[in-house]
Amino acid sequence: MMIVVLKKNSTTEQRADLIEWIKSLGLDVHLSEGKFQTILGLIGDTASIDTELIEGLAIVEKVTRITEQFKKANRKFHDDDSVFDVGGAKIGDGNFMLIAGPCSVENEEQICEIAERVKKAGAHMLRGGAFKPRTSPYDFQGLHADGIELLLKAKKLTGLPIVTELMDISQLKYFDDVDVIQVGARNMQNMELLKALGRENKPVLLKRGLANTVKELLMSAEYIMAGGNEQVILCERGIRTFETATRNTLDISAVPVLQELSHLPVIIDPSHACGIARYVRPLTLAAAAAGANGIIVEVHNEPARALCDGPQSLTPDEFGDLVQSIEKVREAIL
Amino acid sequence: MMIVVLKKNSTTEQRADLIEWIKSLGLDVHLSEGKFQTILGLIGDTASIDTELIEGLAIVEKVTRITEQFKKANRKFHDDDSVFDVGGAKIGDGNFMLIAGPCSVENEEQICEIAERVKKAGAHMLRGGAFKPRTSPYDFQGLHADGIELLLKAKKLTGLPIVTELMDISQLKYFDDVDVIQVGARNMQNMELLKALGRENKPVLLKRGLANTVKELLMSAEYIMAGGNEQVILCERGIRTFETATRNTLDISAVPVLQELSHLPVIIDPSHACGIARYVRPLTLAAAAAGANGIIVEVHNEPARALCDGPQSLTPDEFGDLVQSIEKVREAIL
Amino acid sequence: MMIVVLKKNSTTEQRADLIEWIKSLGLDVHLSEGKFQTILGLIGDTASIDTELIEGLAIVEKVTRITEQFKKANRKFHDDDSVFDVGGAKIGDGNFMLIAGPCSVENEEQICEIAERVKKAGAHMLRGGAFKPRTSPYDFQGLHADGIELLLKAKKLTGLPIVTELMDISQLKYFDDVDVIQVGARNMQNMELLKALGRENKPVLLKRGLANTVKELLMSAEYIMAGGNEQVILCERGIRTFETATRNTLDISAVPVLQELSHLPVIIDPSHACGIARYVRPLTLAAAAAGANGIIVEVHNEPARALCDGPQSLTPDEFGDLVQSIEKVREAIL
Amino acid sequence: MMIVVLKKNSTTEQRADLIEWIKSLGLDVHLSEGKFQTILGLIGDTASIDTELIEGLAIVEKVTRITEQFKKANRKFHDDDSVFDVGGAKIGDGNFMLIAGPCSVENEEQICEIAERVKKAGAHMLRGGAFKPRTSPYDFQGLHADGIELLLKAKKLTGLPIVTELMDISQLKYFDDVDVIQVGARNMQNMELLKALGRENKPVLLKRGLANTVKELLMSAEYIMAGGNEQVILCERGIRTFETATRNTLDISAVPVLQELSHLPVIIDPSHACGIARYVRPLTLAAAAAGANGIIVEVHNEPARALCDGPQSLTPDEFGDLVQSIEKVREAIL
Repeated sequence: MMIVVLKKNSTTEQRADLIEWIKSLGLDVHLSEGKFQTILGLIGDTASIDTELIEGLAIVEKVTRITEQFKKANRKFHDDDSVFDVGGAKIGDGNFMLIAGPCSVENEEQICEIAERVKKAGAHMLRGGAFKPRTSPYDFQGLHADGIELLLKAKKLTGLPIVTELMDISQLKYFDDVDVIQVGARNMQNMELLKALGRENKPVLLKRGLANTVKELLMSAEYIMAGGNEQVILCERGIRTFETATRNTLDISAVPVLQELSHLPVIIDPSHACGIARYVRPLTLAAAAAGANGIIVEVHNEPARALCDGPQSLTPDEFGDLVQSIEKVREAIL
Repeated sequence: MMIVVLKKNSTTEQRADLIEWIKSLGLDVHLSEGKFQTILGLIGDTASIDTELIEGLAIVEKVTRITEQFKKANRKFHDDDSVFDVGGAKIGDGNFMLIAGPCSVENEEQICEIAERVKKAGAHMLRGGAFKPRTSPYDFQGLHADGIELLLKAKKLTGLPIVTELMDISQLKYFDDVDVIQVGARNMQNMELLKALGRENKPVLLKRGLANTVKELLMSAEYIMAGGNEQVILCERGIRTFETATRNTLDISAVPVLQELSHLPVIIDPSHACGIARYVRPLTLAAAAAGANGIIVEVHNEPARALCDGPQSLTPDEFGDLVQSIEKVREAIL
Repeated sequence: MMIVVLKKNSTTEQRADLIEWIKSLGLDVHLSEGKFQTILGLIGDTASIDTELIEGLAIVEKVTRITEQFKKANRKFHDDDSVFDVGGAKIGDGNFMLIAGPCSVENEEQICEIAERVKKAGAHMLRGGAFKPRTSPYDFQGLHADGIELLLKAKKLTGLPIVTELMDISQLKYFDDVDVIQVGARNMQNMELLKALGRENKPVLLKRGLANTVKELLMSAEYIMAGGNEQVILCERGIRTFETATRNTLDISAVPVLQELSHLPVIIDPSHACGIARYVRPLTLAAAAAGANGIIVEVHNEPARALCDGPQSLTPDEFGDLVQSIEKVREAIL
Repeated sequence: MMIVVLKKNSTTEQRADLIEWIKSLGLDVHLSEGKFQTILGLIGDTASIDTELIEGLAIVEKVTRITEQFKKANRKFHDDDSVFDVGGAKIGDGNFMLIAGPCSVENEEQICEIAERVKKAGAHMLRGGAFKPRTSPYDFQGLHADGIELLLKAKKLTGLPIVTELMDISQLKYFDDVDVIQVGARNMQNMELLKALGRENKPVLLKRGLANTVKELLMSAEYIMAGGNEQVILCERGIRTFETATRNTLDISAVPVLQELSHLPVIIDPSHACGIARYVRPLTLAAAAAGANGIIVEVHNEPARALCDGPQSLTPDEFGDLVQSIEKVREAIL
């Protein structure tokens, strides 16, 4: 359903043309005329109608979509929380997923040591970047396929499932044994990538873009789901605002908002949201208190020497303390 | 301390002029010349230097302030958390201040009933608007002085100290018995108002402006403190971003950031941040988990019929439940 | 007119309550029920209804205002451009108002020299700050009433009408001979100030707030106009965004948007929008090309030594060149 | 060059570790100690140092990059404007490039008719989308390779060079005869795509991302240039802000800012910036007046029936009128 308000100076002929075109799309139109405007109610499946197209017509003053454009991701048509299984761990509903690991995979010793330590501290999944999206072409770009090999070694050693970022469809061939494929914030609207992931059969961790609304995040999830892969994990990781005290601004409200609009699990990435290790603890506990379904947090055995993003990483011990506090907070909000 | 980078094509004479002017302000200048730029280090009390002034000079490429411009609000010069006494209740450091009440004072029965019920539920202070800043001149504008009279009746009845918003200096005469004076987000940079409050001798609850950084909030606190009144309570109430799913975006990171930069107490207003009652609970618990020093939350005995902002108000019972959860979360993060 | 979408799980009783309440406000309700939602059309004068109030009700999913809340500022009810007379010069419709002068009035010699030079270059009005809103309490705060005296001397000398900023109602007594009263961006929603200006009988130059939408700017104009003073000049001066290359981001689209929504004149302040003198010329020409009704620009006889905002000031000669280019651009777009 | 401010409570050992690490990167360090902070000046090629890495270190309070990270795109090292040849037309320096055409290629008749008409009106290049990035998976996605075939027919017919968007590396095979490859706003930080284009030998039209700063746009240009392809055309197409009156907010200041920071040509896309045809004319003239090096504008022979983005399209006649006004504005600003 959609509401279209026409301008007062639109002609009868223009209205008739518009109504005819709407009907040609298989929709019904309900017309109500007022003194200063005329209002059309479009009834039927308006998901395939482009709001901006109608908004741009010369005779249109305003368009409001009443029914959301996302369907498969929409809680209206799927009351219960979705729950996915990842290497034996569960995400969604009452489960709280702890994902931890370094920003970048650097070498076998590093990733294996971190994997063992975060597992001991309570993590359910290991994260680590192999393909890295860096702002500058002169920054370290990751170990690529070799990085995935090292993650798989750490997985074999600890039993932890792994999640790592895919930056381009051509890299998919290296992801056969990866448990969860991550789509980074910069690629949230890389539509070709999303379509390709719709043909995969494993969970996708979809990060919210820097300047994307929660509804656009859900439309990107819809892209994946429309292709047949309904295992999407939504991840809030900070949005870009005028505030510069933190790298991005964590939109903590996105947790209850997304959980209301969608049945998909919602996790928080406090490390990228703030960019500073000493704020990771309060933001993680805030996420747990707000009812998030998990976190993805950066942990490094030597944060001060990490090749990238070291400053936002916790030590394994700090992560261990944090896990204990998360559990207490989750009991507190029951 | 301040760093000024000069353009490579600046002349020796232009540099000499600038250096002379800086020295005339009582500062020392440290000069270092490079191939592509020349850098000046300004040493001394640079708080009174306007960064934008220097940034605008034709020969200047970039200016960076190393020492922050706020002093009295700065934790660097005041290690311990400030603690203020408000009618027997304490705010700051380990205390968690619970402020509750209706958006607007409507009548004696309403404000007294709410006061009694929020007190019973654990509130330490009563809030309620008498002078209301409304976006439209056609909206309800508050009961003005009569509203304050009614708040004082509720105070007498329950013993709860009261906080209410001041919109203009001319209204100060009605605030003699008000315990805490609130400065609203729209007035955060109403400098004349801040100066007037610097001459008062009671705590000021200073709300962050919709589009103001945490440093600008601290500069506004500095305006009040510079006048002699050092009792300022900082309040994060959501900032304006591109996201429209909530009325504003609660900047939860502002809690640890402000607590690091300043010794002043930091509270959260979840009601105005989201504008929707059902999100108040998760955001309040997030605030407690992030280490906030308190909350100011809207509670109404009949939310559906409230004259303004009803939709974002909790019922007294919902507030009571929330208080119990807050306490558990605070224990969890110790 | 307003559209209210109810949630699918709202009860018949809840709907009946809401409809009854709406009718008690003197509005008619048109109800249409669908499978996934129920829609109410509120018909009548909805200007006094608070959208956020209804949005917050538990049974409401979405609210859309069809009729704008501003009336006196609305072009719908006032087809022709408003034109105001300011000391013989006209603003609005086909007239292009050139306002120039220093950021701050510093002394008699300065303001008089600048006044004479900008007049000669083609300016129609003199600007100059007497009361200054500075971010830091340690920055220069203006000459106050003495500054207005100096502006009046420059007015007497040159015949140029003057515009200067009012920061607080208590300063109004000094504005008797000021031709146009300026409301600064930080005070755009200082509602008490706006109401006081609604009782004046001279034009008000209303600057858009840093984080305010064009519709909020029009609502602030409405506050002044609702009081009886319909002479409001709208001023776009840059909004706050994530971009830091310029002090603010000039929203050039606000020119055609405001001119479409309202009959009031729209001017641009390129100096505050960018904060850097060398960008003032391209932005001013862009404003003229976009169809603005004038500009307010900072001109200083010695920009490098100005007490505040010097870096964003043109010299009188640069201003003279700019005026000639503005005239050519205006001819080009006829 | 880079400035690093250390916290006052950092230990001598921590400082020594940091300095040693910086030196291991081949940089010199200049140390100056103050009462409240210690400052390190990093001297040498700091382009490969990640600011955020250092910012995140526990002992670091602030980091400022003095030398920009982009080199090949930087005007500092390349004084003259770059000029590229595109099918005989020139872009950059004093040339004003007119690019026009439909949002989407729909069929042979449509694209050929539009191509002939925009050529007659003065266009130098034809635009048209074959691969379309749509927010919803249910929207029209473009004609893909067939769309490029049709563009090539229109090119053959009219002699106009063509520009069209590449969404994924796998599509590159269809772009052999395309004259300019467009990177859309959503892909501005699709780093793999940028790297691939760095290996091409034809101009790339790089659109600024919705939430990207001008410096990030230059870093993305740097990605392409670092690979060997130095023909990059920068395009401002509106950024995302809190304002909703236009689809995006055209950042007109980006024109002079980018032209100052870089030698690359800067064009404006007024159609996507505002999303509404009736604002395209004022925004285009503003761009010309601000000194842009060209525009890319949507033109459709039947805007009301266009498959996508019709509402923001001009008719060929409107485009013809606009071209004449652009020429006059350009003469006016000489």
